[in-house]
Amino acid sequence: MPSVLLVNGPNLDLLGQREPETYGSETLSEVEARVVALGLELGVDVECVQRSGEGELVEQVHRARSMHGLILNAGGYSHYSYALRDAVAAAEVPCIEVHISNIHAREEFRHTSVIAPVTAGFISGCGTLGYELALRACVARIDEGWRSGR
Amino acid sequence: MPSVLLVNGPNLDLLGQREPETYGSETLSEVEARVVALGLELGVDVECVQRSGEGELVEQVHRARSMHGLILNAGGYSHYSYALRDAVAAAEVPCIEVHISNIHAREEFRHTSVIAPVTAGFISGCGTLGYELALRACVARIDEGWRSGR
Amino acid sequence: MPSVLLVNGPNLDLLGQREPETYGSETLSEVEARVVALGLELGVDVECVQRSGEGELVEQVHRARSMHGLILNAGGYSHYSYALRDAVAAAEVPCIEVHISNIHAREEFRHTSVIAPVTAGFISGCGTLGYELALRACVARIDEGWRSGR
Amino acid sequence: MPSVLLVNGPNLDLLGQREPETYGSETLSEVEARVVALGLELGVDVECVQRSGEGELVEQVHRARSMHGLILNAGGYSHYSYALRDAVAAAEVPCIEVHISNIHAREEFRHTSVIAPVTAGFISGCGTLGYELALRACVARIDEGWRSGR
Amino acid sequence: MPSVLLVNGPNLDLLGQREPETYGSETLSEVEARVVALGLELGVDVECVQRSGEGELVEQVHRARSMHGLILNAGGYSHYSYALRDAVAAAEVPCIEVHISNIHAREEFRHTSVIAPVTAGFISGCGTLGYELALRACVARIDEGWRSGR
Amino acid sequence: MPSVLLVNGPNLDLLGQREPETYGSETLSEVEARVVALGLELGVDVECVQRSGEGELVEQVHRARSMHGLILNAGGYSHYSYALRDAVAAAEVPCIEVHISNIHAREEFRHTSVIAPVTAGFISGCGTLGYELALRACVARIDEGWRSGR
Amino acid sequence: MPSVLLVNGPNLDLLGQREPETYGSETLSEVEARVVALGLELGVDVECVQRSGEGELVEQVHRARSMHGLILNAGGYSHYSYALRDAVAAAEVPCIEVHISNIHAREEFRHTSVIAPVTAGFISGCGTLGYELALRACVARIDEGWRSGR
Amino acid sequence: MPSVLLVNGPNLDLLGQREPETYGSETLSEVEARVVALGLELGVDVECVQRSGEGELVEQVHRARSMHGLILNAGGYSHYSYALRDAVAAAEVPCIEVHISNIHAREEFRHTSVIAPVTAGFISGCGTLGYELALRACVARIDEGWRSGR
Amino acid sequence: MPSVLLVNGPNLDLLGQREPETYGSETLSEVEARVVALGLELGVDVECVQRSGEGELVEQVHRARSMHGLILNAGGYSHYSYALRDAVAAAEVPCIEVHISNIHAREEFRHTSVIAPVTAGFISGCGTLGYELALRACVARIDEGWRSGR
Amino acid sequence: MPSVLLVNGPNLDLLGQREPETYGSETLSEVEARVVALGLELGVDVECVQRSGEGELVEQVHRARSMHGLILNAGGYSHYSYALRDAVAAAEVPCIEVHISNIHAREEFRHTSVIAPVTAGFISGCGTLGYELALRACVARIDEGWRSGR
Amino acid sequence: MPSVLLVNGPNLDLLGQREPETYGSETLSEVEARVVALGLELGVDVECVQRSGEGELVEQVHRARSMHGLILNAGGYSHYSYALRDAVAAAEVPCIEVHISNIHAREEFRHTSVIAPVTAGFISGCGTLGYELALRACVARIDEGWRSGR
Amino acid sequence: MPSVLLVNGPNLDLLGQREPETYGSETLSEVEARVVALGLELGVDVECVQRSGEGELVEQVHRARSMHGLILNAGGYSHYSYALRDAVAAAEVPCIEVHISNIHAREEFRHTSVIAPVTAGFISGCGTLGYELALRACVARIDEGWRSGR
Repeated sequence: MPSVLLVNGPNLDLLGQREPETYGSETLSEVEARVVALGLELGVDVECVQRSGEGELVEQVHRARSMHGLILNAGGYSHYSYALRDAVAAAEVPCIEVHISNIHAREEFRHTSVIAPVTAGFISGCGTLGYELALRACVARIDEGWRSGR
Repeated sequence: MPSVLLVNGPNLDLLGQREPETYGSETLSEVEARVVALGLELGVDVECVQRSGEGELVEQVHRARSMHGLILNAGGYSHYSYALRDAVAAAEVPCIEVHISNIHAREEFRHTSVIAPVTAGFISGCGTLGYELALRACVARIDEGWRSGR
Repeated sequence: MPSVLLVNGPNLDLLGQREPETYGSETLSEVEARVVALGLELGVDVECVQRSGEGELVEQVHRARSMHGLILNAGGYSHYSYALRDAVAAAEVPCIEVHISNIHAREEFRHTSVIAPVTAGFISGCGTLGYELALRACVARIDEGWRSGR
Repeated sequence: MPSVLLVNGPNLDLLGQREPETYGSETLSEVEARVVALGLELGVDVECVQRSGEGELVEQVHRARSMHGLILNAGGYSHYSYALRDAVAAAEVPCIEVHISNIHAREEFRHTSVIAPVTAGFISGCGTLGYELALRACVARIDEGWRSGR
Repeated sequence: MPSVLLVNGPNLDLLGQREPETYGSETLSEVEARVVALGLELGVDVECVQRSGEGELVEQVHRARSMHGLILNAGGYSHYSYALRDAVAAAEVPCIEVHISNIHAREEFRHTSVIAPVTAGFISGCGTLGYELALRACVARIDEGWRSGR
Repeated sequence: MPSVLLVNGPNLDLLGQREPETYGSETLSEVEARVVALGLELGVDVECVQRSGEGELVEQVHRARSMHGLILNAGGYSHYSYALRDAVAAAEVPCIEVHISNIHAREEFRHTSVIAPVTAGFISGCGTLGYELALRACVARIDEGWRSGR
Repeated sequence: MPSVLLVNGPNLDLLGQREPETYGSETLSEVEARVVALGLELGVDVECVQRSGEGELVEQVHRARSMHGLILNAGGYSHYSYALRDAVAAAEVPCIEVHISNIHAREEFRHTSVIAPVTAGFISGCGTLGYELALRACVARIDEGWRSGR
Repeated sequence: MPSVLLVNGPNLDLLGQREPETYGSETLSEVEARVVALGLELGVDVECVQRSGEGELVEQVHRARSMHGLILNAGGYSHYSYALRDAVAAAEVPCIEVHISNIHAREEFRHTSVIAPVTAGFISGCGTLGYELALRACVARIDEGWRSGR
Repeated sequence: MPSVLLVNGPNLDLLGQREPETYGSETLSEVEARVVALGLELGVDVECVQRSGEGELVEQVHRARSMHGLILNAGGYSHYSYALRDAVAAAEVPCIEVHISNIHAREEFRHTSVIAPVTAGFISGCGTLGYELALRACVARIDEGWRSGR
Repeated sequence: MPSVLLVNGPNLDLLGQREPETYGSETLSEVEARVVALGLELGVDVECVQRSGEGELVEQVHRARSMHGLILNAGGYSHYSYALRDAVAAAEVPCIEVHISNIHAREEFRHTSVIAPVTAGFISGCGTLGYELALRACVARIDEGWRSGR
Repeated sequence: MPSVLLVNGPNLDLLGQREPETYGSETLSEVEARVVALGLELGVDVECVQRSGEGELVEQVHRARSMHGLILNAGGYSHYSYALRDAVAAAEVPCIEVHISNIHAREEFRHTSVIAPVTAGFISGCGTLGYELALRACVARIDEGWRSGR
Repeated sequence: MPSVLLVNGPNLDLLGQREPETYGSETLSEVEARVVALGLELGVDVECVQRSGEGELVEQVHRARSMHGLILNAGGYSHYSYALRDAVAAAEVPCIEVHISNIHAREEFRHTSVIAPVTAGFISGCGTLGYELALRACVARIDEGWRSGR
C-alpha cells in the first residue's frame, strides 16, 4: 500500500485555538484523523507529523524519500524557507502544498510561497478540507508516476 | 438542487491539442463531462461554458449571481483582468479558481492571479483533476453559506 | 446642439445591486437619466451606453470622434487597458474620466488609471454626482475647443 | 448656513501670472470670488485662504473642524505632506481635493497625492472650474453626513 | 501555396486618420493590399483581418493553426495581453510581431511587448513597410520549418 | 540640573480630540505635565513645546544644542523631513524618538522614520507612556555622554 | 501576580562578549537579573529564556499564551521570521519588541522587523535599559487588557 | 545693476558650528560677505537671506521674480520639496543650485535633488567656494537671457 | 549613390562559430556579402565594419555622419552603452538596429536596448535575414529624409 | 596546531544522492575525509559537522570562537539567515563561504548570500573541490591574523 | 607649477557640431584653449585630452596620478563605467566632474553619475563655462591638499 | 601540456600601488609569476595578460578559444559588461572568475557580476591567493571536460 507523509509546520499545533475566524475550530488531530480515514478509503497509508523547527521539517521531508507522496503545510516558513524548498525538491516524490486560509486574500507577504515552484500542486483557501483534496491530488500524481524536483 | 457554473476562459477550448506536455491530452468536453458527473454524485447541477472574450466572461460570471457557486479558470486573463475580479466580487457566491498547471513553477507573470484575492479557494497544478477538487470545495463552501466579495 | 457620449464599462450595469455601501443604491438607468436631464439644461445632447467588452468599448469611444465630448468610466479596464487609452487619444474630443468611489482610498491597483494621462479631466469619489460634474466639465472643455490626444 | 473652507497652498498665490498655458490667466481672487458666489447660490458660506507654509496649512485645516466642509488644493505639498494628510483625516468634515491641471498628464511625481486616500473626492484637470465642481460635491457630501478620516 | 494570416488589433482600423505624424496617412486597406501583393510575388496567400476585441483576436490567432504563418500587430494589447500571448504560443506557426512606430522611443509602457517572447521575430519603427518586411521574415521562417510556442 | 527639550510636531496639539481609538483621550498638556513630573523625580528639567511648522521645529531642535537631551515626536514629518533629520544630527545631544501608536502596524508610509537613523533611541506603540520611557532613556544616554549626529 | 515571559533569540547568549561597542559589556544573565528585579518592584513575575532555534522560539512564545505578557528580542530572526510573527499573533497577550542597538542606524536589512506589526510596542536603541522600559510598557498594556494579534 | 538673490535653507544658519569636517568652519555671514564682494567685482548686486521654513523659502524664491537671478541651497528640502521646485520654476530667472558637500558621496537620500530639473545649473562638493562659482554661472546665464521653468 | 554603413559589434566576428543553434552557421563575411549585394540591387553603396571596442564603435558611428544611413548590431553593448546611444543620436542619419536572435525570448538583460530610443527602426529575431530587412528599411527612411537624434 | 571547523547546513547530508547532475556523486563523508586529509598536509586540525537546523548551525558557528577558522556551506539558509550572519560576525575568526554549484548560474534567489558580507572569502561553482580551496584560503587568512565581523 | 589634466570622453569631439541647442556652438578646441588660458592666470599648467574608448580614458586618468588635479567629463560613460570610477578613486588627486548640460533636466538615465561618489566636486548645467569653474574648484582643492578615493 | 589564459582587466595594472589596504602590496607581475609557477607544478602552461579596454579584453577572451582554460578578473567591467559575458560564453573553455577583495562586503554595485552566470566557478575575497585557487579549480574543470557557455 503506497504511503503518504502529511507534514504540518509551526503554529499549526494551535489549530482550533488560534484565530478561529481564519482557521476554523477543528483541532489538528481531528483534521489528521479525517485525512487518515480518507487514505484508507483511497488505499494509501497516511502518516501525520507536526514540527515547529525548520531543521526538523527538513528532516521529516527527507523521510518522504522512502515513501510515495508528501502533503505539506509549512505555515510561516512557506514564505522564505529555501531550505525546505530544497528538501522538497530532493524528496523526489509528488508534494501537494496546502494552506487552510486563502493566502492571496491576506497580507502581501503571504501571497508568495517559495516552496510552490517545486511542488506538484497547490491548494489554498479550501479550509481544512484542503488536506483531503490534497490527498486526492497526491494519490493521482503517485498513480501517474510524477517526480518532484526541478 | 444547487447549481454551479464552471467557466473556462481563452485558449482552454484548445485543451488536449495545445502543449499536451503542460495541459494533458484530454479535451475540454471530456473534462466538463467528468465534472458534471461528479456534480450529480454530489447533488449539484453543473453548467459549463467557455469564452475567449473578457467582456463575455464578465457577463457569464454575472450569471452566477442567480446560481449557488462558481468555478473559474480565467486562463491568461487571471494575471491582469481587474474587470473579471470585480465581476467575481460582485457575484456574491463562492468561487473556486482553478489552474491546470502549477502556475508557480512557470514564467514569473503566471505567479500572480489578480482574481485570487476575491475567491473562496485556489487550486493549481493538480491537472484536470483540479476541476473536480474545485467542485468538492465549492459544494463545501455553499454548504457553509460562504459569500464572495471583499 | 453639441453631443456628448457617456460610456460605462464592465460591472457598471450592476449599479445599485453590487456592493451598495461602495457604489450606492441607484441603478445605472437612473443615473443616466439624471445626466441626460442635466444635458438638456446645459444645451447638450447626451447619449448613454454601457458595454462589458474591451473591444466594444474601443468601438464606442471611436464613435465619439463624430461627436463633441466623451465621459468615460471604464471600470476595471481603467487600470490596464492601453487599448482604451489609445482609443481615447484617437477620439480627438475632450474626455472626462469618472470613478464613483474614491479610487485612491481603495486597493493599491485602483490608484492608477492608465487612461487618465490622455483625458482632459478626472473626477473620483464624488459618487454618482460625479457624472453630472463631468458633464459640466466636458461642456466647459468643448466651449474652450479642447482636443484630446497626446 | 453651513460653512466651507477653501484652502489653497504654495504657489497658488501666483495664479494667473505663473505658467498661464498650464494654469490659466485668472487670478486666485477671481477664482475665489466665483466660488463664494456659487456658495451663496447653493446656500453655503465659503471662506477662502491661501498659505505657503505647511504648518500654516495644517492649522488652517484644523480650523475646518468647526466648519462643515473643506476644499483643498495643497499644491506641491500634495505629493509628500503626510502632516497635511493627518490634518485632513483629523478634520472630520468632507474634504474635496482639487488640482487645476491634469496631474496624471504631467511629471511622474505629480501622479500621486498622499492626501487623496483620506479625502471624500478628487477632481483634477478641470481648470479653475474644478473649484466650483468641488463645492457642488462638498455640499452633497455635507448633505449625506460624510465624515473624513480613516 | 502556403497561407499567412495578417492580424491587426484595436485602433489600427483608424490608420491614416489617427495621429498621422506617428502612424502615417495610408489607410489599413492600402497597407493590406500592398502586403497581399507582395505575398503573390513571394508565392504565399495572405489573408488580412482587423479586430478590436481581445477574445476575437485570440480566435483569429487560433485560425492560424491551420495556416502556415502569422503576422500580428496587437496594438495596445501587446503590452498586457497574456491571453493573446498564450494564443500565439498555441498557434504553432511562425509569428512575426509588427509595430508601425518605434515603440522604444515612446511612453515607457510601450517598451515591453508581453507577446514578443513567443514570436519568431519582431519589427518596429519601420512604418507600414514593417508589414512587408514581416512577410519576408515569415516566409523565411516557414521555409526553415520554425514552430512558435515555448 | 540637566535640561531636556520635549518637542511635539503637527497634529499632536489635537491629542485627546483626534482619533481617540488610536491616540487615547488624554490631552497634550496632561501628557506634558506627567513628563515634567517624572523629570523632577529623575532630577532633570523638562521643557515642552509643540509646533506645526517644519521650520519652527528645526529651530526648536536647534535650541536643544544648549540643553542636554531631546525627546521628539515629529508626527507626519517623521516620514520625509530630512530638514528635521539634519537638525537632530546637528543638535549634538541624545535624542529619543517617540510615536504614540505602533507605526509598524499602520499604513506602509508610517513604517519608516527618516529621522530614526540619527537618534539615540526609538520607542513606538507604548501610548503616551512612551514619552516617560523616552525620558528615562534620554537621561541614561545623557549620563553615558552620548552625542547625536552621524 | 501577573507573569511575563522575556524571550531572547539567537546570538544574544553572547551578550557582553560579542561586538561590545554595539551591544555593551553586560552579560545576558546580568540583564535578565535586572529585569526580574524590576518585575518584583512592579509586582510581576518575570521568567527569562534564551533560544537559538526558530522552532524553539515559536514554542516559547506559545508558552506565553498561559501567561500575561511577553517581551521579545528575536535577534536576526526579527527580519524574516513570519513563523515567529504568527506565534506572537497567536499568543494573545501584549508583546513588546526590544532591540538593544538602534536598528535604524545600521545595515538596511535591520530596518524592518516583520514581527513589529503584531506587537503592542517597539523599543530600540535604548541599550539593555530597553528591556526594563519594555517591562514597564508591558505591565501598562496588561493593565489596559491589550490583546496581541491582528 | 542686475540683482541676484542668494537663498540658504534650514540648518545652514549653523554653518561653521555643525559638523565642521563636512561643512567647514566658516560662518554663513562670512560666506555671504565673500559672495557679495564677488558680486561687486562682477557688477551685480547680491542680496542674501536664510530661512528654516519651507513656506518662507517659497516666498523668498517668489521675490526673485522681480530680480535677475537666484542662487539656492535648500538644504534638506532639496530632496523632497516639490513646493520649492514649483516656486523655482515659477521664478522665471536663472537659478543655480549649490551644495557645499559632495551630495553624491553621502547617504543615498542626498543623491537626488527634486529641484535640480528646473534649475539652470548645479554645483556640489566645491565647499563654500561653490557659492562664488554659482554666482559666476548665474551672471553668465543672466547675460544669455536664460529663463527658468519647464 | 547613397551610402550606408553596416556596423557590427563585439563577438559578431565569431558568427558561424559561436552557439550556432542561436546565431546560425553563416559567417559574418557571408552575411555582409549578401547585404552588399542587396545594396547594389537597391542602388545603395553598403560599407561593412566590425569592431569589439566601444570607443572604436563610437568612432565608426561618427563616420556615418558623412554617409546616408546606418545599420547597427551593437551586440552586448546594446544593453548599456549610453556612449553609443549618444553617438547614434549625433549621427543624424537614419539608423536601423538589428539583433539576429529574438532578444525578447532570452535572458532578462537582453530585453532592453538603450540605443533603440534614438534609432529609426528595430528588427530582432529574423536571423541574419534581419540585416537585409534593415537595409530595405534604411533605404526607405533615407528616401523619406528621416533624421536620427532626439 | 590551529583548528578549523567545517560546517555544512541543510540538505548537504544528501550529497551524492540528491540531484547528482548539480552536486556530484560523492557523499559528504567522502568530501569531509578529503578536507581533513588536506588539513593534515597543511598542518591544521579540521573538524566536520552537518546540521539541518538554523539554531543548531548558529551554535556550531559559536563553537568556532574557540578555534582558529571556519568553513561554512549554509545551504538554503545562505539566502536569508541573518541569524547565521550575526553568528559568523560574532565568531571573530576568518570564515570562508563555500557553495558546490555556481549559485550565480541558477535561480535568482540563489544569487545573493546574506552571509557573504561578513565572511573573509567566497568560493562557488568549484564543485566539492571548493571545500579544499576554502581550507587553503582559510589557512592563509589565519596566518595573516584576519578577524571576521563587521 | 601644479599640473591639471582635463579629460573629455566620447562624443565630446563633436562639440559645436552635435545638438547645438543642448551643447552650444563652440568647438572642443576653443573650450580647451579658454581653460588653458585660465590656468595660466591661476598659475596651473592644464593639459587637455579627448578619448572615445573606456580603456583609453582609464589610462589617461591613471596619468593624473603623477599630476596634481583632474577635470573629467566622461560623457555617456558617466552613467555606468565603474572601471572609470575605480580609476578616478585610484588617481589620488582631486577630480572635478563636469557636464555641459543640466543632466538632471534630461532623460532619467543621465540623472546618475557612477563616478560622482569618488570625485571632489560636481558641476553640471553651466555650459562650457563649467570647465572654467571646475578649474577654479580643482585649484582650490589642490591648495587644501584634498585626495580622491574612498 | 594544457594551456590556461590569465586575463586581468582595468586598474589591475596598479596592483600594489592602489588602495593597498584593499588590494595588498604585491604587484601584478609578482602575482602572475606565482600563478605561472603553480602552473608548472600542476602541469599547465599559464599565459598572463592585462588590458584596460573592454574590446581588447573581449579579444583576449576569444584567444582562449584555442586554449584549455581561462582565469578572469574583469575589474570594474564585471558589473556591467555583457560584451565580456558573451565573449566568455563563446570561449567554450572553463572560466574561473576571480576578485581579490570580498566584493560582497563592499559597495552595492560590486555585489553583482554579470559575467558569473556563464563561468564555471567564482572566487572572491581570498586576496591574490585567489588566482592560485582559481588555477587549481580551472585545472580540475579541464580534467572533467567542462565547457563554458549557456
